[in-house]
Amino acid sequence: MDKPKKRYWKARLHEIIYEADTPVGKLFDIILLVTIIASIILVMLESVKTFDTKYHDFLNISEWVITILFTLEYIARLITVKKPYKYVTSFYGIIDLLSTIPKYISLVFGGIHALAALRALRLLRIFRILKLVRYLGASNTLLKALKASRVKISVFLFTVIIIAIILGTIMYLIEGDEAGFTSIPASVYWCIVTLTTVGYGDISPATPFGQFIASIVMILGYGIIAVPTGIVSAEYATQTRASKGKDENVQLNSQSCSNCLSEKHRDGAEFCYNCGEKLHP
Amino acid sequence: MDKPKKRYWKARLHEIIYEADTPVGKLFDIILLVTIIASIILVMLESVKTFDTKYHDFLNISEWVITILFTLEYIARLITVKKPYKYVTSFYGIIDLLSTIPKYISLVFGGIHALAALRALRLLRIFRILKLVRYLGASNTLLKALKASRVKISVFLFTVIIIAIILGTIMYLIEGDEAGFTSIPASVYWCIVTLTTVGYGDISPATPFGQFIASIVMILGYGIIAVPTGIVSAEYATQTRASKGKDENVQLNSQSCSNCLSEKHRDGAEFCYNCGEKLHP
Amino acid sequence: MDKPKKRYWKARLHEIIYEADTPVGKLFDIILLVTIIASIILVMLESVKTFDTKYHDFLNISEWVITILFTLEYIARLITVKKPYKYVTSFYGIIDLLSTIPKYISLVFGGIHALAALRALRLLRIFRILKLVRYLGASNTLLKALKASRVKISVFLFTVIIIAIILGTIMYLIEGDEAGFTSIPASVYWCIVTLTTVGYGDISPATPFGQFIASIVMILGYGIIAVPTGIVSAEYATQTRASKGKDENVQLNSQSCSNCLSEKHRDGAEFCYNCGEKLHP
Amino acid sequence: MDKPKKRYWKARLHEIIYEADTPVGKLFDIILLVTIIASIILVMLESVKTFDTKYHDFLNISEWVITILFTLEYIARLITVKKPYKYVTSFYGIIDLLSTIPKYISLVFGGIHALAALRALRLLRIFRILKLVRYLGASNTLLKALKASRVKISVFLFTVIIIAIILGTIMYLIEGDEAGFTSIPASVYWCIVTLTTVGYGDISPATPFGQFIASIVMILGYGIIAVPTGIVSAEYATQTRASKGKDENVQLNSQSCSNCLSEKHRDGAEFCYNCGEKLHP
Repeated sequence: MDKPKKRYWKARLHEIIYEADTPVGKLFDIILLVTIIASIILVMLESVKTFDTKYHDFLNISEWVITILFTLEYIARLITVKKPYKYVTSFYGIIDLLSTIPKYISLVFGGIHALAALRALRLLRIFRILKLVRYLGASNTLLKALKASRVKISVFLFTVIIIAIILGTIMYLIEGDEAGFTSIPASVYWCIVTLTTVGYGDISPATPFGQFIASIVMILGYGIIAVPTGIVSAEYATQTRASKGKDENVQLNSQSCSNCLSEKHRDGAEFCYNCGEKLHP
Repeated sequence: MDKPKKRYWKARLHEIIYEADTPVGKLFDIILLVTIIASIILVMLESVKTFDTKYHDFLNISEWVITILFTLEYIARLITVKKPYKYVTSFYGIIDLLSTIPKYISLVFGGIHALAALRALRLLRIFRILKLVRYLGASNTLLKALKASRVKISVFLFTVIIIAIILGTIMYLIEGDEAGFTSIPASVYWCIVTLTTVGYGDISPATPFGQFIASIVMILGYGIIAVPTGIVSAEYATQTRASKGKDENVQLNSQSCSNCLSEKHRDGAEFCYNCGEKLHP
Repeated sequence: MDKPKKRYWKARLHEIIYEADTPVGKLFDIILLVTIIASIILVMLESVKTFDTKYHDFLNISEWVITILFTLEYIARLITVKKPYKYVTSFYGIIDLLSTIPKYISLVFGGIHALAALRALRLLRIFRILKLVRYLGASNTLLKALKASRVKISVFLFTVIIIAIILGTIMYLIEGDEAGFTSIPASVYWCIVTLTTVGYGDISPATPFGQFIASIVMILGYGIIAVPTGIVSAEYATQTRASKGKDENVQLNSQSCSNCLSEKHRDGAEFCYNCGEKLHP
Repeated sequence: MDKPKKRYWKARLHEIIYEADTPVGKLFDIILLVTIIASIILVMLESVKTFDTKYHDFLNISEWVITILFTLEYIARLITVKKPYKYVTSFYGIIDLLSTIPKYISLVFGGIHALAALRALRLLRIFRILKLVRYLGASNTLLKALKASRVKISVFLFTVIIIAIILGTIMYLIEGDEAGFTSIPASVYWCIVTLTTVGYGDISPATPFGQFIASIVMILGYGIIAVPTGIVSAEYATQTRASKGKDENVQLNSQSCSNCLSEKHRDGAEFCYNCGEKLHP
């Protein structure tokens, strides 16, 4: 095989794997998506004991098929990018590796419980395919609103935790061991369960005074839920108004540079905005 | 019966069934509404075993009466529309058929559990009568807001499900079988129960570390409920502003007393607040 | 006692009972408020069996004292208004009567459980004293916002109930009697418990498919809570903005006409806006 | 030691303890923060019986170390302020004392349960170090919004409590003792648990009619959560808009006056705005 041909073949593979705009690229993405979802369902079914004992061989073979497919994909990605090291150390590179190797390790060390669950990380790979951020709107109003209200929400959550610790300690003093308030950490856990209006009922006050304090905790939790909602609503509205004037006509597409892996190029871009590499060689 | 007479009779029937603006049309709608509600209550009561054994005959006869009434209505609708095929394949046409036939099928195959419940679909027919969309306001502000934020809410829900699967898998590894985390699907179910702040308590963490992770899940769920609310609030506000042009209710009106000339009387005031003179002589 | 003197005495009593702007009127209101709260606490304590058996005599005597005080107040109100019939048939007139008579009836028929609880209605009388609406701000922005979104919230709640009935029926078919889904009404009850994120856990799905449907119900409930919040937020914001430009200097006060009992007269009003009666005879 | 030297030494100590802008002051704050968090974790672990019996000596010695450190800090604070009485009676002065003495009291009276928990108050000291209010943004938009909607939220919470008492009484009449509705206070507690969508399930209706009323309570609670959220959202948005025009460039820093303890001086301030004392002597 001569060199130019090989280069062409690599560029073609790069297009299939990294770009969703060509028919073959789209097909590749859809197959990958289906494989990931199928593999997640397999991981789930494997954890159901009655199912695992009944269909153990089927699950084992399917898992091997998927693992080999993911291995091939990993190798293809490694080959087609110009700087493989950059891919290996990138977020998705680590996820790809971690979600592929558990089956190989199980060959050497036997099926380790925790390793098997590592495969659930494959879920995160869905985000790469769907390129979800694009759906949030060109202006990413929501992300901007969340970023703008980040500090305020942190302070709010911090305050909630302080309230939970203090009220939890008070409940520990009021209620005895019988109602489940066996220690301060358990009481704080109860307080978070109540403040967030989850209310399992595994621990619940038994004395009238404890129920009185619990009522205050509930109404408090019911009231303060308004705060983060209010913050996000107002910030979101502000961001929406702010982005009204901007020109939002230029779309960013999903192709990625074969040299530096940077994404979100302008539609119609011929060269990478980051490293100057030609985008369609 | 000559043809014009028949045509007139069909047009009249069409008016009664499909239009709510004539007195007879209104009466038809009200009778239909009452019948539907009565039939829903019958379906419900029939499922209560103690009630069913006691009043089985009454329930059976009532159900036959309602089924025959609905059959007549179905036939009438078929006759009066110009394109019966279009009605049969329309959403309400299918609902009408599915909610009428179970009793007839039970004649042949006996009372099948699942078939009987099909009758609950009759509920959907209420929407046709009430023409509910009309009540949402002429501008359909709410529907527009929901439509505008549809993609964002979908992405949000998708993210919630991904979080639930990953955190559920982690909890499956931390907590043992004793606490109810018997498989990954069960743990994901627990995670959704907790994230949405429902909190049944059928599965709840027993180990301190599990309770710690659960607390994080709860606070996360408590925090992210702000996101859809913020989106809908802001979009709704935008839609409201867009569709402006309505009159605002005024508390104090601008009329002046013919005796003492004082202004700003309450809306609906009959006498002057200052001199007691009648305002509309 | 000559007639003018008696009329003056009646006018004075009217002022004390119905107006909160004079010192004596304020004192009357505070005494009434304390009495009502004390009587509510008595009703509550009476229902606690251990407390009732221990302090039965104390509770009985206190209840008689409060009943007699309320009787005197009722008679005073009857005397001082010009049209007693109007007072008796008014909302607060009925509340006053219903919350006073149970003790008298118990003399004749003995202590009836349900009657004793009627006294809890006394709570509603607090609203008259506090004239709570005033605290909501002169423009009643919140009430206007709720009124403006009334229809939308009704449609929303109606939709929630329809969803609950249909999903409840589906769950009744999926889950058996063992999990608590014994009838359609019980399943609908479960569905409301879940949709509103209350989640008692007295009924909870046991089969994997049931848990799957339940997860959908939860995420649905978690999502649609955004709708009423969004409506109220946006309407409230609209009302706030609308009331910014208006002249809000004229306050409506809490005095009531001695003739027709209508309230919320303009500050400085000399005559009733409804019947033309002089307000301060 | 001559007098000026001593005065310099006191001023230096004041700077370290009360100001976070110098490197030494920052270091002091970080050490204090770590000590407080460590002490909170100790209090928590001590309450876990299995942990306490195993590591009793370690916990005891650590607690003594922390208590002595806090005692030294308390004395240092007393010495460096000009008006020690003012510090002792201030909010943080009382918190400092209460969270330090329990260990000393336990020497005389033995380990009293409730006293040990007093140490949880140390948590409140975190707020002093973090000076959290600063993070809320220069304009304190959130606090302003909460303050502006304070009265409305109070009226709202008051209304919720009234609803809880009335509906709780109704449920007490409908449901018997078997379902847990043993008294009116217990029923009111259940009603708050339900209205706030917490839903423990320790008390839950058993009769069909009780479940019907409970459903209404849930939908009510689900609906009225929109009210505080709507208020806070709208007020927050108003505050955000209002603070747009203002000059927000001047920051307030965290140093405190050595004379009157007042905080939040303007950046670059040389003299206390409250008492005129020089800030950096």
